[in-house]
This record gives sequence, structure tokens and C-alpha cells, in this order.
Amino acid sequence: MSTFNTENASTLESAMQLMIQTFHKYSGNEGDKYTLSKAELKEMLTAELGNYLGNAQDKDAVEKVMGDLDGNNDGEVDFTEFIILVGALTVACNDFFQEYHQDDKKAAKTE
Amino acid sequence: MSTFNTENASTLESAMQLMIQTFHKYSGNEGDKYTLSKAELKEMLTAELGNYLGNAQDKDAVEKVMGDLDGNNDGEVDFTEFIILVGALTVACNDFFQEYHQDDKKAAKTE
Repeated sequence: MSTFNTENASTLESAMQLMIQTFHKYSGNEGDKYTLSKAELKEMLTAELGNYLGNAQDKDAVEKVMGDLDGNNDGEVDFTEFIILVGALTVACNDFFQEYHQDDKKAAKTE
Repeated sequence: MSTFNTENASTLESAMQLMIQTFHKYSGNEGDKYTLSKAELKEMLTAELGNYLGNAQDKDAVEKVMGDLDGNNDGEVDFTEFIILVGALTVACNDFFQEYHQDDKKAAKTE
């Protein structure tokens, strides 16, 4: 039995699988294999969110997320904390996406 | 300028993009194009989470998530509520994945 049936996965199920795979790719490197140490977290952020963090239009949102994560931090990030981080970044990214399209509409109206 | 650069996206960024794309695929069908109506939510759950909801080992976890979502419900699900749903399902899925692997280890030890 396979835990994940990637062949029949929907778009949303693929996204869920990619998040689980990403976490375990880094969490298994040292210490508890089901949590991210600070070194593993830093490696994950640099490798996986380099494009996003480098190009982010809303630096404040990103720094707020980092601060929130540090607040809970016992030196290890578990899967739930990882999902909260990814969820918050995705909401920030979607807000930017929606505002960008709303600005498009406004620009079209005033033309 | 493109909002998403899918060519250079990391695995995690791809997952984030897939979640945003999935939401807007259904939210644009009727009414407010940035929220899911009940009909749009039902269509999304059936089409995107049919495999997961059909095969889920932990039905209680799934029903708890649905109940939590209904609790906040004004008949429309916004992107943040959608991400909370997907995040909770992903955590439940990861818990199952980790327990499955821990059971493997236990089984190997007692052999």
C-alpha cells in the first residue's frame, strides 16, 4: 500500500503532497526526523522560498511571519508550525495577487 | 510582469501556487469572484478532495475540519478560511503518514 497515490491526485492533493514532501526532505537531516532544527529551517527557507523572499513585494508581511514563528520557537519547528508559516505566506501572496488584479481593473476603467 | 514565475519555482512555491490556482478555479464561477459560495465549495471538495475524503483513514479528523469550517460560515468561504481547511487536512494527512512509518519501525523491531 502506498500512502500517496500521486497518479490520481487532484491539483489540491498534489499541493498537499508537495508540502509534506518538502518538510520531510529537510526535517530528516539531523536530530528529530519529524521536526526542523534551526539549521534545517534556514536551509529550507533559503532553498524553497529564496525566489519568494527575494522578490516579495510586501517585506513587512514576510518579516511578521518570521517573527510569529520565532515567538513559538523552542529551537524546533514541527509540521503544524511549518504549515502555519506556509499558509500565512500563501495568504500574503494571494492578497498581493488579488490587489494586483484589482489595480488592473481600476487602470482599465480610468483609461 | 508575471505574478507567478512557475519555471523557477521551488517545490514549496509550486505547492503555494497550486493552492491559489485551485481556489480561484472555483471561486470565480458565481457571485463574489474572490470567495467560494456553498455551491462552489461543494464542487471544489468533490472535485479536489474526492480521493482524500473517500480514502481517508481518519474520518473523525475530516468531519471535525468540516464542522470547524461551518462554524465560521456566513455562506461564503474566503481564501484564508480555505487555507485553514487545506492546512488542517494536510496536518491530519501528515500525522497519518508519520504514524504509518512509526508502525513500520515497530513492526520491524518485533520481527
